[in-house]
Amino acid sequence: MIITVVGIGLIGGSMAITLKENGFAKTIIGVDTNSENIDKAFRRRLIDETASLYDAIDKSDLIILSTPVDVIVDLLPKILDRVDQQIVMDVGSTKVGLLNAVADHKKRENFIATHPMAGTEYSGPEAAIPGLFDGKCSVICAKEESSQKAVKYAEELYTSMNMKLVYLNAKEHDVHSAYVSHISHISSFALALTVLEKEQDENRIFELASGGFGSTVRLAKSSPDMWVPIFRQNRDNVLDVLDEHINTLSKFRSLLIKKDFESFYKLIQKSNDISRILK
Amino acid sequence: MIITVVGIGLIGGSMAITLKENGFAKTIIGVDTNSENIDKAFRRRLIDETASLYDAIDKSDLIILSTPVDVIVDLLPKILDRVDQQIVMDVGSTKVGLLNAVADHKKRENFIATHPMAGTEYSGPEAAIPGLFDGKCSVICAKEESSQKAVKYAEELYTSMNMKLVYLNAKEHDVHSAYVSHISHISSFALALTVLEKEQDENRIFELASGGFGSTVRLAKSSPDMWVPIFRQNRDNVLDVLDEHINTLSKFRSLLIKKDFESFYKLIQKSNDISRILK
Repeated sequence: MIITVVGIGLIGGSMAITLKENGFAKTIIGVDTNSENIDKAFRRRLIDETASLYDAIDKSDLIILSTPVDVIVDLLPKILDRVDQQIVMDVGSTKVGLLNAVADHKKRENFIATHPMAGTEYSGPEAAIPGLFDGKCSVICAKEESSQKAVKYAEELYTSMNMKLVYLNAKEHDVHSAYVSHISHISSFALALTVLEKEQDENRIFELASGGFGSTVRLAKSSPDMWVPIFRQNRDNVLDVLDEHINTLSKFRSLLIKKDFESFYKLIQKSNDISRILK
Repeated sequence: MIITVVGIGLIGGSMAITLKENGFAKTIIGVDTNSENIDKAFRRRLIDETASLYDAIDKSDLIILSTPVDVIVDLLPKILDRVDQQIVMDVGSTKVGLLNAVADHKKRENFIATHPMAGTEYSGPEAAIPGLFDGKCSVICAKEESSQKAVKYAEELYTSMNMKLVYLNAKEHDVHSAYVSHISHISSFALALTVLEKEQDENRIFELASGGFGSTVRLAKSSPDMWVPIFRQNRDNVLDVLDEHINTLSKFRSLLIKKDFESFYKLIQKSNDISRILK
């Protein structure tokens, strides 16, 4: 199969490595508006060739969109205008806005919306790694709106990458993503800022910060180029979860103020429940 | 050297393994009010023998206090009442209250306050692991209030464990700890609660939660038995940092409400600065 990857960053690049390595792709064509990314992708051997977007579409069986989500929303209708038999798949972190943008497109069936739930705090082709998706989950959204061929391509592709499949509608996907991914990022960004703003003596942070701090702020290294479009697309859900999170923190705060350490204990105990579901 | 470890949990147990393995301790005597912990410690080969607290003190060169911090505050004066030449060292996460509790003790010099900055979200003797402290920092507090012998013991002990030494006064220690450790825990507890409370369908969390979520809530598995005493001791500093953190989250919130994604971008960019100091 000839696959075009549009946007050769962490996700697109890692998929390119994996799909070439496991033989699912015979050829990977890389498309990126940033020529430096294409250079890096060739040097990292992520792609076999490059082309303009339309030439790449014409030569491919499958087009994977792995740009920031606002670019996906903008590009997808144009790509669908161009396709004939080809299947188009996105791997973005938000879905409702995207599916609305192509709801009435005559080639809607050629498109399948997916979201492999994997990533790191790094970005760009230099961040691409093999094994990123191994054993993780990938969401397939609104399956019934895509052709059988499109669904089959997506299912076979993720299965070849050793991913488990989860089927959700777009709305469910965006709500769940706000809870299990987007809020974690805002929490990390805020924690990093809190510490950076108060701590003037940076060496001290560096010296004293142990594993716990490192893991809670790790995501604060994430790129705003990727994340601002996600927060823009999923604003309402993220606001809901963020309100809830601020309320929960305020509960801890008011128990500290009241020195009600018995209730504080119970609240921690309740949060420990997370270990039942996250090993 | 004969060393007594009072409180054989994650930290005490891991120190016991390390100090026996590197030859710093000839014998490790384990003391714990929980007899189940002593059993587990024997089975895990963390300790060589056990004794009552006073017998253990009498036989030892060094006594390490690694119980929850409220127990340390309670025990330390009693242990100092009993010691002759022995050195007593605590490894607790808060210092101001503790140092006040023994400020006028006639054996104050025999005590040295320390805090090895390492840990995991697990607790108890079964959580003890070798290598926990390797390459990390240990704080030595208010060094000038301890005898030269006490300082030497602490310095040699942590150096033998391949730890770097940082010297702080008690107040600095407690403020810094609030920033680089205690707030991370509250943030994780709150994040876990937020997600647990809203998400009824637990399988979904389990399936979709990828590495990012896992790392930000990892600390929510931490034991309230250890952490509530820390928040009690360091309440004022933790409240300051928590207020700051809630304010920062509220900044993100109000930018989302206003759809001011340009400022949102700048805030994320600023938080990315954390990568300069945390590799």
